[in-house]
Amino acid sequence: MVPHFICGTGILCGYISSKTSFSAPVLDLYQITMAYAYWKSGKKKDVAVFDLFFRQNPFQGEFTIFAGLEECLKFLENFHYSESDITYLKETLPSSIESEFFDYLKNLTAKDVTVHAIEEGSVVFPRVPLLRVEGPLIIVQLLETTLLTLINFASLMATNAARYRIAAGKQVSLLEFGLRRAQGPDGGLSASRYAYVGGFDGTSNVLAGKLFNIPVRGTHAHSYITSFTGTHDLHTKTLRHRVDGEEHDMLDLCQKWRKELATHLETLTEEASDGELAALIAFAIAFPDGFMVLVDTYDVKRSGLLNFCAVAMALNNLGYKAVGIRIDSGDLAYLSNRARETFTLVADKYDLPWFAKLTIVASNDINEETILSLNEQGHKIDCFGIGTHLVTCQRQPALGCVYKMVEINGQPRIKLSQEVAKVTMPGCKSAYRLYGANGHALIDLLQRSVENPPQVGEKVLCRHPFEESKRAYVIPTHVEELYKVYWKDGKIVQNQPTLEGIRERVQTSLRTLRQDHKRNLNPTPYKVAVSDELYNFIHDLWLQNAPIGELF
Amino acid sequence: MVPHFICGTGILCGYISSKTSFSAPVLDLYQITMAYAYWKSGKKKDVAVFDLFFRQNPFQGEFTIFAGLEECLKFLENFHYSESDITYLKETLPSSIESEFFDYLKNLTAKDVTVHAIEEGSVVFPRVPLLRVEGPLIIVQLLETTLLTLINFASLMATNAARYRIAAGKQVSLLEFGLRRAQGPDGGLSASRYAYVGGFDGTSNVLAGKLFNIPVRGTHAHSYITSFTGTHDLHTKTLRHRVDGEEHDMLDLCQKWRKELATHLETLTEEASDGELAALIAFAIAFPDGFMVLVDTYDVKRSGLLNFCAVAMALNNLGYKAVGIRIDSGDLAYLSNRARETFTLVADKYDLPWFAKLTIVASNDINEETILSLNEQGHKIDCFGIGTHLVTCQRQPALGCVYKMVEINGQPRIKLSQEVAKVTMPGCKSAYRLYGANGHALIDLLQRSVENPPQVGEKVLCRHPFEESKRAYVIPTHVEELYKVYWKDGKIVQNQPTLEGIRERVQTSLRTLRQDHKRNLNPTPYKVAVSDELYNFIHDLWLQNAPIGELF
Repeated sequence: MVPHFICGTGILCGYISSKTSFSAPVLDLYQITMAYAYWKSGKKKDVAVFDLFFRQNPFQGEFTIFAGLEECLKFLENFHYSESDITYLKETLPSSIESEFFDYLKNLTAKDVTVHAIEEGSVVFPRVPLLRVEGPLIIVQLLETTLLTLINFASLMATNAARYRIAAGKQVSLLEFGLRRAQGPDGGLSASRYAYVGGFDGTSNVLAGKLFNIPVRGTHAHSYITSFTGTHDLHTKTLRHRVDGEEHDMLDLCQKWRKELATHLETLTEEASDGELAALIAFAIAFPDGFMVLVDTYDVKRSGLLNFCAVAMALNNLGYKAVGIRIDSGDLAYLSNRARETFTLVADKYDLPWFAKLTIVASNDINEETILSLNEQGHKIDCFGIGTHLVTCQRQPALGCVYKMVEINGQPRIKLSQEVAKVTMPGCKSAYRLYGANGHALIDLLQRSVENPPQVGEKVLCRHPFEESKRAYVIPTHVEELYKVYWKDGKIVQNQPTLEGIRERVQTSLRTLRQDHKRNLNPTPYKVAVSDELYNFIHDLWLQNAPIGELF
Repeated sequence: MVPHFICGTGILCGYISSKTSFSAPVLDLYQITMAYAYWKSGKKKDVAVFDLFFRQNPFQGEFTIFAGLEECLKFLENFHYSESDITYLKETLPSSIESEFFDYLKNLTAKDVTVHAIEEGSVVFPRVPLLRVEGPLIIVQLLETTLLTLINFASLMATNAARYRIAAGKQVSLLEFGLRRAQGPDGGLSASRYAYVGGFDGTSNVLAGKLFNIPVRGTHAHSYITSFTGTHDLHTKTLRHRVDGEEHDMLDLCQKWRKELATHLETLTEEASDGELAALIAFAIAFPDGFMVLVDTYDVKRSGLLNFCAVAMALNNLGYKAVGIRIDSGDLAYLSNRARETFTLVADKYDLPWFAKLTIVASNDINEETILSLNEQGHKIDCFGIGTHLVTCQRQPALGCVYKMVEINGQPRIKLSQEVAKVTMPGCKSAYRLYGANGHALIDLLQRSVENPPQVGEKVLCRHPFEESKRAYVIPTHVEELYKVYWKDGKIVQNQPTLEGIRERVQTSLRTLRQDHKRNLNPTPYKVAVSDELYNFIHDLWLQNAPIGELF
């Protein structure tokens, strides 16, 4: 449906383009500076290979979900510098820059670039490149920041969402409510998209729903409740029966029910807020089939639950089934249990089994730890609405993907560092995931691209990339080649899955991972190894490049 | 220049619209749900007042910078639902919704809304509303999420940047390098914009430079250096003298200088990387007036500094002054001191005083604490390049602004909560900042709008909003009214300052704040008080609304 929203006021056009066709100017100045230095020093025909990878899993976990590939491919399709970009760059860069360079920029496209990538939605691990970008040095260098930007946050967000899903379990619904706390409207849009990919069921973000066809959900704010001061604020009081269409006075019916229920629920009608009752009745009249409301504006136990049950029973009289409640404050474990008890009591009393199963949504400042703690305490929540901590990835707000040159003009390049973890893996590499008999992933193996792939049923020597003595033989029962060509000769060369497809891939891929790699507390690291040939290749190159230095 | 970038590929159009004309669909579904419930229950003519405020300063600090107002006003100007929005909402909302509601939505604008606000760029404090939004209940409710989104991140970012500026001091340059770690390209764009507002001097983000006229800065990546394996990679070796235009062999000249300098710097030419030298020469030939390069690709002391000085001295022979170096790893305090010593030694040896003052940029994973620690250790850094921690606001990734109803149809509303900090201040309020004789802000005072403003030279009773016994008299020497009308009758009614103007406002406003409120460690809280009349008004309403409950 996206292509229908053509310009008009600009906003939708704005978002659509920003989400589907990143073109050139999303870059850091140093890319242009480097491009000119390369161009000026006659390196226009140099070809290079860059790896895009991260060094550490986020959130103290042992896995990451790879996301953002589709947006990268769209960016490559649209990559070019417009006249106005060139004009701006001419004004901004030193006047000494030769004008032929700008002519060169004007004609650049990504058609000579080839991109290998891991499938979007896959579980991925540190050091295994997510993207291998090959092509003219100047161009692949110019792609750097945009590719990083599109993958960093997307993958972080999808990983965060997947972790919430693991913490909450499969039976609970997860809704993303984070727009107001995101990095502006478009940051919020990315958050909604990748929360859905990572395993959330819906979002409050209407634009995300509209653009990406994600289910949208939402009830009302506390201000909705407080805008009703009493039953006199209720201008429309009637609702027609679902089946026979007869009009009934909802206020009257609800007040009767409240009186009757008060005795069963051991609360006092006088303590329940009339403003809240009026607000709930108005909501029920507006959404008789979607009656899902906040019950904590005044007091959950003494006002909210009583008012809710009264309106829900009145709706029941008129042929409608209420949906449930949302609790946005207080002790969520305790209150959800009290709410479930109340619903069960009413269900038993009036022989309405569905009433015991009304949905309980909880939504106050929830993060992964809150969910785990609620699980331990025992709660009766069916759905979490999660905002701030999800979209800001509060526990670790950046993934830290990097983009490193590993080969130039056929020569491998290594970036040395005093921190071993920062040494890059030189050369063009292939990556394989080796599986055991039970279907679980055993290890990821990086090889030089020139090597033969590992074979099912044959011993494969897997080595730690830097620690000489750490080696193991693995006999895989299944070998998955991790890279496919996604971009070549100016075209996307794989069928693009739908957002739904990527979302399913996340769950399929996570299932291949052993439980102990996925747990929240002290998860077992998943191993990434190199082949014997790649090991020797790295270490030979290391010795060639490292200066003989001071005493260690 | 913005209006020139008309559509074309979409991307610039996309960003421009997304940064200048947020229209309606950036919202949470519950706003539409509420709107329908209001509409259906005959509350179309209800008028309400909402306050937008935060409850706690971010980053364990005692101040916040208010930013995002300009974007809010542009949003109000463009606020409406397009045909396609309506179509989407019709498909998404329950089919029971009356079609007249969609006709009503179609014609909505913000023309009956009035917005009072504090000046953008001002120092602000918890509980003092940043915006007071008055108008038809349904419409002001529909504005909620967009206003929150536009102000939350903008203010958080500007505050973060202002804190970095305070930590770094006025003499040091601050550059924002965060695009690759932001919440997607547009999250990065907001980050660049508000980092500049908060006190940064420039950004690496080219699009931010183009759209907002922010200075852009950048050198090159480590991959630029490693793309040169030796001096044979140097295809262009000559550079013309700045004045006489005579062509010189830079490679030859640089090698001579390297040999000579090696003895003075007590390093060995053989230990310095030839690839690095070639890369630096190529960069110098491309940017003879902008020679600013990374020196830590191999080894700062044994390779980078020697190569840099050799090329800088060669440039000097040809009439050019080098700019400086960037260090992106290692012990920044130690390395910057070593670099400064080296520059001073060369400056003295060759009687080139400017050489001692070459710029040293540092840029590895820097945050506020790193800067403070570097200050303590004593560093010689002139400029920090800051990315991840700045743009993700790692220490607290969300501000937590809320949007609460305080009045409906002339009746004050109070939102009670078991947490006193969450109780809202009812009614339409004015806010004043009272200043002392030395020009410092003493206290912010909230009053009921109907009260007379506090007077210069007269005793003003300032009360803690919730603690009865906390009261003080203040005699202001200057009284600043914090609110101005910014939006009325469908128009922006204040002259909008430039981005530069807002940026200056931040520093002017911060100067009125006592140093102890601004310090990093245990800052003194700045007080926000209420007038005696507002105090009584709140507490009377509280007693009227709070149920008499269980024993406390």
